[in-house]
Amino acid sequence: MAHQFKNDLAGFKADLEGIAIEENPALVKQKSRDFFWYSPVLKRQLDHVTADLIVTPKDEAEVVRIMKAAFAHDVPITARGGGTGNYGQAMPLSGGAVLNLAELNKVKSITPGSVVAETGAIVAQIDKETRAHSQQELRMHPSTANTASIGGFVAGGSGGVGSIRWGGLRNLGNVIRLRVVTAEAEPRTLDLTGWDLHKAVHAYGTNGVITEVEMPLTAAYDWVDVLVGFDDWMTAVRYADELAHADGLLLKEIAPIAAPVPHDYFLRHQKFIRREQSVVVLMVAPQSMDAFLAFTQRAKGEVLIRYDQASPADLKGLPPAFELCWNHTTLRALRVDPSITYLQTLYSPPDHIEKIETMTRIFGDEVPGHLEFNRFDGRIAASGLSLVRFTTEARLEEIIRIHEDHGCPIFNPHRYTLEEGGMKQTDEIQLAFKKEVDPKGLLNPGKMIAWEDPNYDYRSQKTYLFPGLQQAS
Amino acid sequence: MAHQFKNDLAGFKADLEGIAIEENPALVKQKSRDFFWYSPVLKRQLDHVTADLIVTPKDEAEVVRIMKAAFAHDVPITARGGGTGNYGQAMPLSGGAVLNLAELNKVKSITPGSVVAETGAIVAQIDKETRAHSQQELRMHPSTANTASIGGFVAGGSGGVGSIRWGGLRNLGNVIRLRVVTAEAEPRTLDLTGWDLHKAVHAYGTNGVITEVEMPLTAAYDWVDVLVGFDDWMTAVRYADELAHADGLLLKEIAPIAAPVPHDYFLRHQKFIRREQSVVVLMVAPQSMDAFLAFTQRAKGEVLIRYDQASPADLKGLPPAFELCWNHTTLRALRVDPSITYLQTLYSPPDHIEKIETMTRIFGDEVPGHLEFNRFDGRIAASGLSLVRFTTEARLEEIIRIHEDHGCPIFNPHRYTLEEGGMKQTDEIQLAFKKEVDPKGLLNPGKMIAWEDPNYDYRSQKTYLFPGLQQAS
Ligand SMILES: Cc1cc2nc3c(=O)[nH]c(=O)nc-3n(C[C@H](O)[C@H](O)[C@H](O)COP(=O)(O)OP(=O)(O)OC[C@H]3O[C@@H](n4cnc5c(N)ncnc54)[C@H](O)[C@@H]3O)c2cc1C
Ligand SMILES: Cc1cc2nc3c(=O)[nH]c(=O)nc-3n(C[C@H](O)[C@H](O)[C@H](O)COP(=O)(O)OP(=O)(O)OC[C@H]3O[C@@H](n4cnc5c(N)ncnc54)[C@H](O)[C@@H]3O)c2cc1C
Repeated sequence: MAHQFKNDLAGFKADLEGIAIEENPALVKQKSRDFFWYSPVLKRQLDHVTADLIVTPKDEAEVVRIMKAAFAHDVPITARGGGTGNYGQAMPLSGGAVLNLAELNKVKSITPGSVVAETGAIVAQIDKETRAHSQQELRMHPSTANTASIGGFVAGGSGGVGSIRWGGLRNLGNVIRLRVVTAEAEPRTLDLTGWDLHKAVHAYGTNGVITEVEMPLTAAYDWVDVLVGFDDWMTAVRYADELAHADGLLLKEIAPIAAPVPHDYFLRHQKFIRREQSVVVLMVAPQSMDAFLAFTQRAKGEVLIRYDQASPADLKGLPPAFELCWNHTTLRALRVDPSITYLQTLYSPPDHIEKIETMTRIFGDEVPGHLEFNRFDGRIAASGLSLVRFTTEARLEEIIRIHEDHGCPIFNPHRYTLEEGGMKQTDEIQLAFKKEVDPKGLLNPGKMIAWEDPNYDYRSQKTYLFPGLQQAS
Repeated sequence: MAHQFKNDLAGFKADLEGIAIEENPALVKQKSRDFFWYSPVLKRQLDHVTADLIVTPKDEAEVVRIMKAAFAHDVPITARGGGTGNYGQAMPLSGGAVLNLAELNKVKSITPGSVVAETGAIVAQIDKETRAHSQQELRMHPSTANTASIGGFVAGGSGGVGSIRWGGLRNLGNVIRLRVVTAEAEPRTLDLTGWDLHKAVHAYGTNGVITEVEMPLTAAYDWVDVLVGFDDWMTAVRYADELAHADGLLLKEIAPIAAPVPHDYFLRHQKFIRREQSVVVLMVAPQSMDAFLAFTQRAKGEVLIRYDQASPADLKGLPPAFELCWNHTTLRALRVDPSITYLQTLYSPPDHIEKIETMTRIFGDEVPGHLEFNRFDGRIAASGLSLVRFTTEARLEEIIRIHEDHGCPIFNPHRYTLEEGGMKQTDEIQLAFKKEVDPKGLLNPGKMIAWEDPNYDYRSQKTYLFPGLQQAS
C-alpha cells in the first residue's frame, strides 16, 4: 500500500493558522532525528532523513486540526515525544511533518494507583508529581526518564527500570488507557482500554496519535543505588538470577554487566571498579536493604558503592545507577569507543542461564555481556543488551544468526521496522487497526511492513527496504 | 532431651508479683486451645491438653521477668497470640504456663515501607493504622487477620493473602526484624535480622519469645473482591494460573475452589453460585480492574459478584472474600459438614497443573480441590488446601501417601510437630539456636522433634508421639 504522498505543504499550513510551525532546515533536521545512530547500519541508511517542517500543537484540539489537515493535504505525520527512541522510530522516512508533542505535557490527575497525563509529559516529571502528591511513582520507566515522554515510551519503548517487578509495557495492565486521534478525513478521538490497548502500544505511532495516557502507579521509595562486583561474569549472572527469584526482596533494577565494560566505560564510577570486575547494577528498596546485604554477603559479592552511604565527595557528579543500565550502558560505551554497537536478545527461562553461558563462551569479549533481568509472562527472564565490538555488517549479521541458532531470539536494533525489531511476523490486530484509523497510511510511513507490503516474506533473511524512504541528496 | 519439668508453680507465681495470672480452670483451658480440632487426628490426641495457668504480661520487661522465673522454677512456657493457629501449635503439651501476649499490642512506628509493632498487635489493626498513616499495609496476612496476632503469624503462620505477590514469610525480606527474649537464667533480648531471622520464624515459639516485630509494608489499595465461576474445575485452575502469570495485573489473592464446595459451604454467597460451579476467589487492585475484566472475559469466566458494584442488599452480611480462602475454606466446610478435614500440598512448577489434574482424577469428590496460588522462589506455584471427606485415619494416611507418590509433598496438618508439618528433617539452624537460647527446653515442649529426640527417624512413616504429652485424665 506504499504510495507517494501528495504532501501539499502549502495547503496543510494554510489550515493550521495559529498553530506553531517550524521550517528552519537545521531545526527541522534536529527534530527529525533520534538515537538511530547507535546502529552503524541505521546510521548509513537514515542519516539524511529529514521532515519538511515541525508542527507543535499545544492541546488535543490542535492535534485534531493537524490530523484533519494532514488527511486533506496528504501530508505524512510522524509523532515525536522526546526523540530518544532508538532504531529511527521517530524519523520521518517520507518527509512531511514531524508532530512535536512536547507541549502536551500536563499531569492531569492522580489517584491511588493511577495517573492521567498528556502524552508529552516527561516521564521523570510524572514521577516527581506523583511522589509529591502521594508517595507514588510509575511502575516502570526507561533509563531515559529525564528526557523521554510518556507517550513516546508507550508508543516506542518496551519496559525498563521496574520491569523486574512488573514485566513490560506490552503486558495487560501496565497501561490502563490511551487516548488517540485518528488519521481520517474527520479525525476521531478514541479511548483504548483492555485488549484494545494492543492496537497502539508499541506501534511506533503508526496507529493514531496518542494525546493522553493513563498509567498504573506503585509505591515510591527512596531506592538505594548499589553496585556489586564479582571477579567472574557467570557468578555475577547467577547472583542476579537468584536475587531476581527472591520474592521477599523488593528491587527495581537488576543488571549484570560484564568486565571490562563497567571499568572502561562507566567513567564516573571507574574509581570504584577494578577492570576485571563484572558489576551488577541494582536499585533496592530501603526496607529490603538488610535482607539484600545478607543475601549479597552469602553470595560473596563485593558492594562497590551504595549511594545511601557514600560520601558527598564520592557522590559528586555520579549519575543515578539506572543511567548505567538499559540503553545507557551502550551510550556510555559509545562515548568512549564509537565503534561499539549492541544487540537485544531474549534469554527465556528455564534455561536462560545456560544460554547466556553458551553465548559468553562463543563470543567472549567481542560481545561483552549486559543483561537486564525482568519478568516475562510471570517468569524471571534475562533480556540481553549485549555490546558488540563492531567490525563489519556481515559479522554483525553472523553474530545475530549464531544467537538465533542457539535459541536466543534477537530483537534487531539495526532495523527501523516494527516487525524486524520485533516478532518478525505480521501483527494482525495492529494491521487491522491501521486500516481503520489511518486509511491513507499517513502515520509514520515505512515502519509497519505489514501495511507497506502485505506479501513480505519475513523468512527471506533480507533487510526490508521501505520503497518510500527519502533519497539521500 | 525430653525430660520431666519440676514445674514449681508456687515459686513461679511468687516471682511474678504484679503480673496478671489466671488460674480458673475453664478460662485456662480455653486459652490452652487453638484450631487443632480441624484435624480429627489431633482432636483425638490433644483434646485434653491444658496449661496450669495463664500469665499475661503488659510489656517486654514483664516478659523478661516471666522468663527468668520460668527458668528458675522449671516451668514450661507456651507463647500465645490470638490462638488461631492450627495443628495445636499454641497448645501446652506439658502443661505449665501459657504466656498470653495479647496485651503487647501497640503499633510503635511506621515509615515508608515498614512498621514496628509489638507481638500481640492484631494483624488487621496494624493494617488499619498503616493505612490511615500513609496508605500502606502489610505485604501479606493470614485469612484470620481480624483475630490473629502479628507475632503468632510470624511464629506459626506461613503466608496468606498477598503471597501471590510476595511469597511466604520464610522468604528473606518478608520479615525485617524480630526481637526475642531468651529462656535462660538471665534472659537476654536479641534483635534478629537477615539470615538470623530463620532461627525464630515459623519455630512455633520454641526459640525465644517474640516481643516485637518489624515488617515490610506495601501500598494499600481498595482491593476489589471478585468471585469468578467456571463450569469445569480444571478450566478454573488454568485461568487462575494464567492470571497469576500476568505480570501487569496486581492481585492480592487467587484461590480456585472446586464445585460443589463454594455452593454448598459458602452459605452467605450461595445465592450467587450454581452448584456445579467451581469458583476462583480474587482480590484485584482497582487500577487493574479493566485489564482483569478483559482477561476474564476472554477466558469465558463468569463474574458472579464483584463487591465494588454489588447492591447494599447483596453485600449485607457478606464476609470479605479472603474469609473464603486459606483455612477459612476448611472452616466454612466444617461448619456445614463436621466430617470434613483437609490437607496441605505443594504443587510445584513447572508441572503443577498436571499434578493437580492427576490428583483430581484420582480422588474426585473425596478430596475436593482448593488451591492458593502464590510465589515460590520466584515462580508461580499452587499450594493445595484440599478438603478431605474424612472416613478413617488409615484412609487419610493413604491419601497422603498417594499424593507424595505423585510428587506432591504434603505438609501434614494432622501433626503437632514442626518437622512433620514441614520438611520432615532436622532444621540444624533452629536446633542450634534452641540449644543456645532455651537450654532447658522450656519453650513449647514437644513441638521440635530434633530437640526432643535427636535420633528420630523421619522415614519411619510413624507419627511422632511426644513422651512428655500430658495424659488424658
Ligand atoms: C540511552 C537510551 C536509553 C534507553 N533506555 C530505554 C529503556 O530503558 N527502555 C525502553 O523501553 N526504551 C529505552 N530507550 C528508548 C527510548 O528512550 C524510550 O523508549 C523512550 O521512552 C521514548 O520516548 P520518547 O518520548 O523519546 O519517544 P520518541 O523517540 O519521540 O518516539 C518513540 C516512538 O513513539 C512514537 N510516538 C511518540 N509520541 C507519540 C504519540 N504521542 N503518539 C503516537 N506515537 C508517538 C514515535 O513516532 C516513535 O515511533 C532508550 C534510548 C536511549 C537512547
Ligand atoms: C480459619 C483459619 C484460617 C487461617 N488462615 C491462615 C493463613 O491464611 N495463613 C497462615 O499462615 N495461617 C493461617 N491460619 C493459621 C493462623 O491463624 C495464623 O498462622 C495466625 O497468624 C496465627 O496467629 P495467632 O496470633 O493466632 O497465633 P497463635 O495461634 O497464638 O500462635 C501460633 C504459634 O506461634 C507461637 N507464638 C505466638 N506468639 C508468639 C510469640 N510472641 N513468640 C513466640 N512464639 C509465639 C505459638 O506458640 C504457636 O506455636 C489460619 C487458621 C485458621 C483457623
